[in-house]
Amino acid sequence: MPFEFDEATSLAALGDGAYATPIHDRWDINGNANGGYLLAIVANAMRAESGRAHPVSVTMHYLSPGPAGDGMTTTKVMKSGKRFVTVSGTLAQGGRDIATALGVFGDIDSSIGPQSVTVDRIDIPPFEECPPRAAPPVPEGAPPMGLGSRLDMRIHPDDTGFARGEPTGEALCRGYFSFRDGRPVDTLSLLLAADAFPPVMFNRFGMFGWVPTVEFTVHVRGVPAPGPIACAFSSRVIQGGMWEEDGEMWDSEGQVVALSRQLALAPKVS
Amino acid sequence: MPFEFDEATSLAALGDGAYATPIHDRWDINGNANGGYLLAIVANAMRAESGRAHPVSVTMHYLSPGPAGDGMTTTKVMKSGKRFVTVSGTLAQGGRDIATALGVFGDIDSSIGPQSVTVDRIDIPPFEECPPRAAPPVPEGAPPMGLGSRLDMRIHPDDTGFARGEPTGEALCRGYFSFRDGRPVDTLSLLLAADAFPPVMFNRFGMFGWVPTVEFTVHVRGVPAPGPIACAFSSRVIQGGMWEEDGEMWDSEGQVVALSRQLALAPKVS
Repeated sequence: MPFEFDEATSLAALGDGAYATPIHDRWDINGNANGGYLLAIVANAMRAESGRAHPVSVTMHYLSPGPAGDGMTTTKVMKSGKRFVTVSGTLAQGGRDIATALGVFGDIDSSIGPQSVTVDRIDIPPFEECPPRAAPPVPEGAPPMGLGSRLDMRIHPDDTGFARGEPTGEALCRGYFSFRDGRPVDTLSLLLAADAFPPVMFNRFGMFGWVPTVEFTVHVRGVPAPGPIACAFSSRVIQGGMWEEDGEMWDSEGQVVALSRQLALAPKVS
Repeated sequence: MPFEFDEATSLAALGDGAYATPIHDRWDINGNANGGYLLAIVANAMRAESGRAHPVSVTMHYLSPGPAGDGMTTTKVMKSGKRFVTVSGTLAQGGRDIATALGVFGDIDSSIGPQSVTVDRIDIPPFEECPPRAAPPVPEGAPPMGLGSRLDMRIHPDDTGFARGEPTGEALCRGYFSFRDGRPVDTLSLLLAADAFPPVMFNRFGMFGWVPTVEFTVHVRGVPAPGPIACAFSSRVIQGGMWEEDGEMWDSEGQVVALSRQLALAPKVS
């Protein structure tokens, strides 16, 4: 049996840089595919076209919600260099563009110097001591947990307030990312990890609806060692009806494996 | 007399989303146009095509060095929404692609809530008390200061070590950005500000050559009030032959006006 994530990001080359990349069911929030999942689908096609091993930096802009169903990603190699290949990719469904991306693909070896890492690994209890991201009591109109059914995510005990309707007041959410079916987290699935946690807005202002991502960038900085990925997400500038969410991801050996940032729309606070 | 930056980012519509966007002289480092300047050129064409006022989030991937000369930016509107217009743009010179970008354009009003800004404005002396970024003693093979001749940049007195060959050891550079000819800093020129400072690598490991940007994203979060822009750049994860540089920019009224991040190649440390 293939792992769920591999099935959900499978592709078939159609020639001329086009790939059939169906959007699978139950990788959604409220019926629309998770933004990190969409990025993983498109980046997988871009990576195939690049002929290189890993996504190094990928940026996606979201154009329309992506319900489960057919999908086609059209890619174009913008530059094929010695070290990196730069590729563009656009996912469409029934002729409508869902999301568009730019990315660079190549080898990643975090042991190459110079080395200077000054960001502290997040202070978080072991995986087993962090509560699972349970399906929260779903208020009327709130999203069902399609994506959550695929993942084994744990939330830092200090950051679970949002799920009880007791937001911590701080735009911070820490936890662990892993797949429920035991699939190892590789560089492609880090793109999903970077958008899978509850929006940190939920802990800052209380839980409310839809906070659509406008732009999402992930830098993959290491190939993860086996085990869950420790993640910290935060936002420092909520203003102008927008907010950024910064992500930091570490593997089980304490190596930084990804940095992410997205810009999203803020809901109106009543 | 028009301001230099306006002249250097001028464009002429050629129809079908194409714009003549020449690359002007003396916005370069070592003969190749500064990455922030290239982003400003391309974003200006993308903005024109969008019909909207401001760049909100723009990402550029760099493909080839861009010497001064002709240039043509080909843009395509990917989505025209009520709030934002998403546009792609690629700058070519003599048939060779120099850089490619994705961006979203629209209105920016930082006073719209919800409001929660937890990043502290940088601790920096007033503009007049910070030394100008002087043309440093240029070691053999080091870049001449084309870009510097256009700008009035000041460096935090504690962060000038790199220029004396006495790096501070910290991947941090703070200072002020303004134009020498008094042009106000608007949302377009924030894209230049975000890439105009000396690479923070110079303060971490000493001054050495070329640290080419692979990917560069700027989020514009406010329309600047008049006056110099206070900036802080830092890097936390230098590994794998790559490093990220994060930028924070404030206007004279203490408002966050932009956040930036780039991924760049690290030189080999001898």
